[in-house]
Amino acid sequence: MRVAVIGAGEVGSAVVDLAGEFGHTVTAFADSKSAVVDDDGIDTDAALSAKRTDGVLGTEDPEAALEGPYDVLVEATPTTLGDAEPGFTHVGIALQRDRHVVLANKGPIAERYQEVKDLESESDGSVRFGATVGGALPVIATIEDFSPSRITALRGVLNGTANFILSRMAAEGLDYEHVLAEAQDLGVAEADPSFDVDGTDAALKGVIVANVIDSEATYTLSDASIDGIQNLPGSMLDLAQEDGRTIRLVVEFDGDQVRVGPRLVPEHSALAPAGTRNAVQLETKVAGRLNISGRGAGGEETASAVLADIGRLQS
Amino acid sequence: MRVAVIGAGEVGSAVVDLAGEFGHTVTAFADSKSAVVDDDGIDTDAALSAKRTDGVLGTEDPEAALEGPYDVLVEATPTTLGDAEPGFTHVGIALQRDRHVVLANKGPIAERYQEVKDLESESDGSVRFGATVGGALPVIATIEDFSPSRITALRGVLNGTANFILSRMAAEGLDYEHVLAEAQDLGVAEADPSFDVDGTDAALKGVIVANVIDSEATYTLSDASIDGIQNLPGSMLDLAQEDGRTIRLVVEFDGDQVRVGPRLVPEHSALAPAGTRNAVQLETKVAGRLNISGRGAGGEETASAVLADIGRLQS
Repeated sequence: MRVAVIGAGEVGSAVVDLAGEFGHTVTAFADSKSAVVDDDGIDTDAALSAKRTDGVLGTEDPEAALEGPYDVLVEATPTTLGDAEPGFTHVGIALQRDRHVVLANKGPIAERYQEVKDLESESDGSVRFGATVGGALPVIATIEDFSPSRITALRGVLNGTANFILSRMAAEGLDYEHVLAEAQDLGVAEADPSFDVDGTDAALKGVIVANVIDSEATYTLSDASIDGIQNLPGSMLDLAQEDGRTIRLVVEFDGDQVRVGPRLVPEHSALAPAGTRNAVQLETKVAGRLNISGRGAGGEETASAVLADIGRLQS
Repeated sequence: MRVAVIGAGEVGSAVVDLAGEFGHTVTAFADSKSAVVDDDGIDTDAALSAKRTDGVLGTEDPEAALEGPYDVLVEATPTTLGDAEPGFTHVGIALQRDRHVVLANKGPIAERYQEVKDLESESDGSVRFGATVGGALPVIATIEDFSPSRITALRGVLNGTANFILSRMAAEGLDYEHVLAEAQDLGVAEADPSFDVDGTDAALKGVIVANVIDSEATYTLSDASIDGIQNLPGSMLDLAQEDGRTIRLVVEFDGDQVRVGPRLVPEHSALAPAGTRNAVQLETKVAGRLNISGRGAGGEETASAVLADIGRLQS
């Protein structure tokens, strides 16, 4: 398929880098300020190199990327809350032109789900967003396979940064501030780690999952009850360990509400993945509890989820 | 979709029972001796009841089911080895008529994969067989999503009976014969448990997975190296436990060979599911190690996998 990628951060760049291996042609690549467009396929190595060295992709405007002859637009611009712009507008432009959209950007699906679905129903294009939840873990795809009405609940550890911090606090007996600094040094936490440590990122994923599972109601971030890990003292993890447990930042959707908060979980259980790994537990009507775990975050991991979604559009 | 089900054991009956809830119409239901056919949809409750009380589904011949106006044939007759008959013939009849086939029967995919793929390429119908590996676990679907060439290895605990026996031996310190008898009382092991305890069932699943992952070679049961659990003394499990490990019947495909045998695994790890649960570990090129676990075996669980495959045919 011909793929236009908007957003040149970790995920967008990884999609451009890997698309050829999956048999696709990148016909446009844009960030907020510039774009490179070629209906026959851009020189992906050159574009990625230009971004790295000059911070500029090409000589075109980003609009040129959105208006090109692609089959699917990959929306990989940074997640924004509330009006979810400019991501929502990008989605709308593609669907209005009867193109497909694959999102890694959580904003439009978490904050304006019904509007996106309405635009999709009026379009020949389809919208997929597996990459927004759990990186490489097939969470949305698995919910679709079981059919959303047969999923009664989801529990997940879906933020790699928070999980890394809690894992390290438990393993080394170090306090939060210390481990956060370590995580920032390693690039596991951002300079501004708020969304990861205050539970917002996990809540966005919970809201997205709730929107997929519940066909009768639409959820937004403001519907979620959120507690982060910033105030967790190291002593709580020691106490948990004495009881064969540990603490993880867990997001839950029980069919009614989205909740995020630190939870006690058994030490080596499905909901206590190590490091930056993610884990999801689905309660299904016909097949009991299903556990999935693996690498959640990361440019390549999330890109592989985007490319898997593009593949699903083809079959 | 209009669904014809051939095979009236646990899985076939569960598919017939659940099809309506998934929006499908059962137009034919057959076992080895009889069939009930109705182009507008059979009375599923009546047919299941007749099977339970009289052992007979209806007054038609099984051939009538295969020749009817269905969209997809569900092949749920017992797995047979070697020529994989009569399952292979059933698959051929449906494909020749340009109908889809969804298999729960492992025989044709494990023993005559290339022939099935050849028939599929000459047909307008597609073949799906997710229900053959891991029951409700989305194993085949996940391999397809990542694209088979990006899966470098699979390791799995894919036989619920053997796993139950080993779990119980470890938990209770009981010997194999004792736990096998218990498993048979519970219906977890068959009166003739050979395929489960000698590793054949796990090997068939490994061969199916190998056929999907490896696009250059075709595997059959005779390619697998198989060791079962029949000769495992309880003392080995005690020894393992002293080292924080346990023993599970693990099937592996490393890109080259299919192997089944008892393996030492860490006690609470991804490859040590409890009871009859199944677990699969996929090594992926771009996203590291992915773990999936859940209920493998069971009529309803496997039927949900069949119905998920039918759903995939529709989109």
